[in-house]
Amino acid sequence: MNLLVVGSVAYDSVQTAHGSVDRALGGSATFFALASSLWARTHIVAVVGDDFRQSDLDRLRQRGVDVSGISQVPGQTFRWGGVYSPHFETRTTLFTELNVFASFNPQIGSVGAAADCVFLANIHPDLQLSVLDQCHRPRFVALDTMNFWISGERPSLERVLRRVDCVFVNDEEAYALSGVANLSLAARRIHAMGPRTVIIKRGEHGAVLFHDGKAQQMPAVILDDVVDPTGAGDSFAGGFMGYVASQPRVDTRVLQTAVVVGTLTASYAVQGFSVDRLETLTIEDLAARHDLLTANLLPSSVDWPSIRSQNRPLAVGVA
Amino acid sequence: MNLLVVGSVAYDSVQTAHGSVDRALGGSATFFALASSLWARTHIVAVVGDDFRQSDLDRLRQRGVDVSGISQVPGQTFRWGGVYSPHFETRTTLFTELNVFASFNPQIGSVGAAADCVFLANIHPDLQLSVLDQCHRPRFVALDTMNFWISGERPSLERVLRRVDCVFVNDEEAYALSGVANLSLAARRIHAMGPRTVIIKRGEHGAVLFHDGKAQQMPAVILDDVVDPTGAGDSFAGGFMGYVASQPRVDTRVLQTAVVVGTLTASYAVQGFSVDRLETLTIEDLAARHDLLTANLLPSSVDWPSIRSQNRPLAVGVA
Repeated sequence: MNLLVVGSVAYDSVQTAHGSVDRALGGSATFFALASSLWARTHIVAVVGDDFRQSDLDRLRQRGVDVSGISQVPGQTFRWGGVYSPHFETRTTLFTELNVFASFNPQIGSVGAAADCVFLANIHPDLQLSVLDQCHRPRFVALDTMNFWISGERPSLERVLRRVDCVFVNDEEAYALSGVANLSLAARRIHAMGPRTVIIKRGEHGAVLFHDGKAQQMPAVILDDVVDPTGAGDSFAGGFMGYVASQPRVDTRVLQTAVVVGTLTASYAVQGFSVDRLETLTIEDLAARHDLLTANLLPSSVDWPSIRSQNRPLAVGVA
Repeated sequence: MNLLVVGSVAYDSVQTAHGSVDRALGGSATFFALASSLWARTHIVAVVGDDFRQSDLDRLRQRGVDVSGISQVPGQTFRWGGVYSPHFETRTTLFTELNVFASFNPQIGSVGAAADCVFLANIHPDLQLSVLDQCHRPRFVALDTMNFWISGERPSLERVLRRVDCVFVNDEEAYALSGVANLSLAARRIHAMGPRTVIIKRGEHGAVLFHDGKAQQMPAVILDDVVDPTGAGDSFAGGFMGYVASQPRVDTRVLQTAVVVGTLTASYAVQGFSVDRLETLTIEDLAARHDLLTANLLPSSVDWPSIRSQNRPLAVGVA
């Protein structure tokens, strides 16, 4: 099934404890599509400048991404520069040059309109709404957002939330969006705003799927070698949405597996700068890491009956 | 088997989004012992002032804690006051009055010296060393510490680390102690300092057990109602060490289950102010919550072979 992503295609300059890259391929739609294209034909709608390298379009095409919706216009491509603290707890933006992205007005065309699944990356909620207005009843729509829109464009954001199936946010965004400080309560309030599925991205701590009245946790992989966390969230969303788009139906089981796929995808993405690791990712890689992760989860099978029988209440005044 | 804990018994004044308590029973040894006494006879060595309430000693006795090593001396009991931010991300200390704790010089006596398992709560590493010097070859010794000692008393801390089996630290402490910013690498360096077992406490994100060349994760329970996180780490350590002390041998399997017990114990501890919830905790409670947690872990069984067969590489130029 076809998948549409509307977001940014950018050039990033990134410094981490492991090195730096300049004008490296980035942007939400780029990370997303390179992750999702492992599972489903992915159509990007984005805008780039006349400085955008043909070789970067080729890299996307090599992975089967449909780049026909990337329009090239006069001017510079969106650029972002940032530096991560040594332990990756904080990220400081050095510059954001919107360039041609400043006047991005997504036209999704007939291919985009026919998409089965749609991911609205982190752009102005009015643009997200405009995309939805152009779609022909997609069966699954998800969006990403951030505090800038949550605080600054709430009415628009609430309008688009009513029309999506799924939202991806981190803990802080969930609190800001819901106005409550507890994750479960926050998810409940966000459900009430529209999305039946709420996914909390917790970076190195994994993810939580709130769906169908349950909170389900996905631990993250403990990595020796995080190189560059840029794009981790979009890679997660790409793995998730790609898997969903590859399935005939969207049910609880599919969403659960999609969170597993998204988590594993992001764990690889952060092991290289830019999109380097995503470009060579295989389903075999995901399966291998999933085996490793589950082997290292602490025993789900604790023998409580035998523990109870061996540890009768101590001879004290407790009930 | 007997368990010795050496640490603080204190009165805490705590404010959270859920309310406040003043001069409530607290201190590392208190939380620890109320958690561990569910599993093993626990002997506290600590000091309190003449303001310490008899009723608080009774609360400990009620749970089977041996309070004969708590010496009462003229002066005021250690007092701590703090306020948590609404989402519990930060804690601000309002006051710390060491009082009688300032001249604490633990004498563990014959009961303490004979203890099978020993927990050195977060006190000056020289005092931790002095306790070890008084012990008769305990079979399992663990310590807690903090950045104040890691940066200020490193030579002493390194001496005591060489003599313990297990250390409890959080992410930041592990980085500070090891000088490396990655959790796995940090654990490896800490192993090289002495402890064969390194436990990383990650609060609402669970815990990681580094032992025997493996990193094993324990996710935390997602709670609707965190009331007061004070003492969570000591409750974790108490559950862990209590379970270890209850077992005939300390092997990998026992350490794994102990991390599960510690995590579940802490998840209850934070649902009440002070030690309120620990006082009524049962093994049944732990088992019930463990069932809930494992039921809500995302499927460990993803059918990768069938996923692979359904998702053959897309018709693109990828290997």
